[in-house]
Amino acid sequence: PKGRKETGLYAIAGAKLFEEALEMRQRFHSAAFAFDKTEKHQDVIRLLEESGIPVYAMPGAMMESVCGTETPQGAFALLHAPSFDLPDDLLQLGTKTVALDGVQDPGNVGAIMRTAQAFGAGSVVLGKGCASPLNPKVVRSCMGAIFRIPVYETDDIADLLAVLKNKGYTTIAGHVQGNEETPACLERCALVIGNEARGVSPGVEKQCSVLWRLPMPGSMESLNASVAAGVMMYELFVREK
Amino acid sequence: PKGRKETGLYAIAGAKLFEEALEMRQRFHSAAFAFDKTEKHQDVIRLLEESGIPVYAMPGAMMESVCGTETPQGAFALLHAPSFDLPDDLLQLGTKTVALDGVQDPGNVGAIMRTAQAFGAGSVVLGKGCASPLNPKVVRSCMGAIFRIPVYETDDIADLLAVLKNKGYTTIAGHVQGNEETPACLERCALVIGNEARGVSPGVEKQCSVLWRLPMPGSMESLNASVAAGVMMYELFVREK
Repeated sequence: PKGRKETGLYAIAGAKLFEEALEMRQRFHSAAFAFDKTEKHQDVIRLLEESGIPVYAMPGAMMESVCGTETPQGAFALLHAPSFDLPDDLLQLGTKTVALDGVQDPGNVGAIMRTAQAFGAGSVVLGKGCASPLNPKVVRSCMGAIFRIPVYETDDIADLLAVLKNKGYTTIAGHVQGNEETPACLERCALVIGNEARGVSPGVEKQCSVLWRLPMPGSMESLNASVAAGVMMYELFVREK
Repeated sequence: PKGRKETGLYAIAGAKLFEEALEMRQRFHSAAFAFDKTEKHQDVIRLLEESGIPVYAMPGAMMESVCGTETPQGAFALLHAPSFDLPDDLLQLGTKTVALDGVQDPGNVGAIMRTAQAFGAGSVVLGKGCASPLNPKVVRSCMGAIFRIPVYETDDIADLLAVLKNKGYTTIAGHVQGNEETPACLERCALVIGNEARGVSPGVEKQCSVLWRLPMPGSMESLNASVAAGVMMYELFVREK
């Protein structure tokens, strides 16, 4: 995290992600391959070099300590981080947005970004206490969604929701004590997913017009955050069409 | 894995899980607490001792190496593993079962067990190449579902599906090339979830009457396996009621 802040760069691992990043016109700083993996990756190396991106080779054993993430394929690249600042015009969040209130687990944050893009959300907003979108585990588990869906960070999800409500968004929170009926996702809506253990925080809950609990006929207290988010996004953004 | 096979025991971590295991009448071998955590856990320690379960105290630093899993709360227990053999009468799988064909990631297997129990499936069957249900990460991420939902292991999911079809089950596989219409989950059905990268294997696919793809209006190739499984279980087992 310190290196990311100082340099404005973040690491991605695996050649398939390089191709996606190139396709989505992400700004590369450089790429590196393990000595014994350069031949296997010659196609992507050519693509990178044609785009004027510096490509290095290094001992495989050195890669992990250099790039700070697992590199099972012997390939990592450094990318210039995009800006995660909220846009001045919040309508740029799109008619369907997903706001995360303290979702800590990077695997959950990455899976939610992936699902949000797949199910046609316009953006994902990360509030306080969320894993960073540049966390290597988030980058890995989002499967390239970070190049596709606009991601924003804010310290104050409650305030954001208040403004969105004024702009006509229905604000819907996943909540274990909520109503079991699937809410109507009208023209504009924001789906809020809370912390894995504590759910949405009280200040955020206050800004939600609907608290929604997925019916659970079996005896479990709750669902995994990214599973619950996935079911809710499907119901709101895809199924109701 | 070797220790689990030799002893027939597996480890669970965290006092909340102990309480669930006690409530669900799991067979404890023993429990251990870090010296400095015994006071905080005195209630559960009393419960364990009243049930005649040996309780030990040890240095916190020693716990992880002894029990082979992370013990952030300074508490772990050893439980006798249940049998995962398929029942002779396959109708014991229940009218709705979830079969995993090579789901490797323990976080996915655990989340699917948790979701299956929450959404009222009758059982989960793990095929070849799946993470073990006793893998510490599976146990942790299933949030106690392993004490609640019957879990089975088999080397031959394709054969199981063939038999289930003869018994009137609709066999439905999540498949990126499938049909986007939500299939009808008639009286009996088996939902099959394939490997994270390769999907269902060809032999298993042959035994599936329906290949089902969740519609993805956004540009992503696929979903996380536990998210896709969650949406599908919700649509099949909960929503269609």
